[in-house]
Amino acid sequence: MNFMEKEKPIGVFDSGIGGLTVVKEIMAKLPNERIIYFGDTARVPYGSKSNETVIEYSLQDAAFLVQKNVKIIVVACNTASSVAIPALRERFNVPVVGMIEAGSAYAAKETIDKKIGVIGTRSTITNRSYSKELRRINPGFDVFEKACPLFVPLAEEGWIDHNATLEIAEEYLRELKELSVDTLLLGCTHYPILKPVIQKVMGEKVKLIDSGVAAAQRVSSELDRIGLRSNSNGLGVVSYYVSDIPSTFEKVASLFLGKPVSHVTKVDTETIIKSNAQ
Amino acid sequence: MNFMEKEKPIGVFDSGIGGLTVVKEIMAKLPNERIIYFGDTARVPYGSKSNETVIEYSLQDAAFLVQKNVKIIVVACNTASSVAIPALRERFNVPVVGMIEAGSAYAAKETIDKKIGVIGTRSTITNRSYSKELRRINPGFDVFEKACPLFVPLAEEGWIDHNATLEIAEEYLRELKELSVDTLLLGCTHYPILKPVIQKVMGEKVKLIDSGVAAAQRVSSELDRIGLRSNSNGLGVVSYYVSDIPSTFEKVASLFLGKPVSHVTKVDTETIIKSNAQ
Repeated sequence: MNFMEKEKPIGVFDSGIGGLTVVKEIMAKLPNERIIYFGDTARVPYGSKSNETVIEYSLQDAAFLVQKNVKIIVVACNTASSVAIPALRERFNVPVVGMIEAGSAYAAKETIDKKIGVIGTRSTITNRSYSKELRRINPGFDVFEKACPLFVPLAEEGWIDHNATLEIAEEYLRELKELSVDTLLLGCTHYPILKPVIQKVMGEKVKLIDSGVAAAQRVSSELDRIGLRSNSNGLGVVSYYVSDIPSTFEKVASLFLGKPVSHVTKVDTETIIKSNAQ
Repeated sequence: MNFMEKEKPIGVFDSGIGGLTVVKEIMAKLPNERIIYFGDTARVPYGSKSNETVIEYSLQDAAFLVQKNVKIIVVACNTASSVAIPALRERFNVPVVGMIEAGSAYAAKETIDKKIGVIGTRSTITNRSYSKELRRINPGFDVFEKACPLFVPLAEEGWIDHNATLEIAEEYLRELKELSVDTLLLGCTHYPILKPVIQKVMGEKVKLIDSGVAAAQRVSSELDRIGLRSNSNGLGVVSYYVSDIPSTFEKVASLFLGKPVSHVTKVDTETIIKSNAQ
């Protein structure tokens, strides 16, 4: 295997900034790897768009990363992971890691009582992406799903310790708690920000599955499988590209990443669209 | 004036469903008028998009209404009202009513102490559209602005009586209350849903300005000015067009309109784009 191949970066894309929680976990798991992140902040959210549009945008986002010479693509967006994985795998030669597969596999290993809760945006829950994948893994699983639409804006506001957040979490999670799930899958990249309050409401015994952690593990095992883990002993560097820089980008990005974000470059949407035409 | 001209409908567009609170007020103020509503639910939100894009989309949305033969256009979207009014007035021959002008004029008439608060989405507050318009009307106004990003998802969840909503409102409005504004402009079409809790937090003495009410008054006076008020004694009918039907459309639309929504037609985005090319 060519030395240079191993030193290629890991590519991560998302419809916006939520995927930064996934970058955080990849950095923690694979500190020597370089990462290229693309957040399609100009066209966020993907959740309210048609499957055809989400597939088209995902192909463009991934093509932009492939042009940056990535060795693996992480789809750090639940909506894109739910509909675009087959199209991405058909189109590109590098491995593609999706949130639904990674998170579901992780939850399937963790549950003992086979009672799994899944929380996510309304789009993810309506599509039933996680419950389909979990039942594909094991038809004996009892899967209970709940949309928590206020969790994304609460995470973006950074209201982690706010009493209102606790009350909202109590209301959203009441049913899952009563159903005594032993594992709760955080099916949205924003939700790890609210992990402490979710854990508090669900109780310490319930295992929370951060799909970012699951994706980072999947990336690690994929790199081992194809023999492309970096040999570098240096510190990994992340380069951030976004299609628009919202006024709150820096604040929210730092919160999601757990440290200040540097090296942010704005890319025209036109450039992203053209990536896929080449 | 031709009889038929007066019986043409009023056209209302918004980036999504928030504009239905404006439709509600127009129906209340002008019960005999027919209304055509277009909600660009496939491309919502406009607030995170560039001014050029918002202008382009607004011209398309308005062109769709003009093809439906409307006698006046109401831009029931604060973002579009903030950037697209000049372009719309240049392009179309019918009067164009925007939220910023209507709401600001109304607030300017109501304030006694000349201390006006404005709440809205982050985009509206960052653009300072209301404070610029208010200071244009009277440079002596003290205008205090506050973004309330959680109010839109709370309104869409229908959490009107929820304690979490009260706590969130108390946190957002604390500063405006301490500044003793006597008038508070609801600079987002979603906010009238939360009027009771906002009034409770601000106190009964503070005058809340619903920009939907202001827009309905403006439509009424514009129709009188151009002599196009309907002579019909029948009940007004509203036809709803949307570029996508989200799963929660019916529930949220009923909440915003105050009654069930009927006659909803889905229009392809392509049709909307083509409207403006003709």
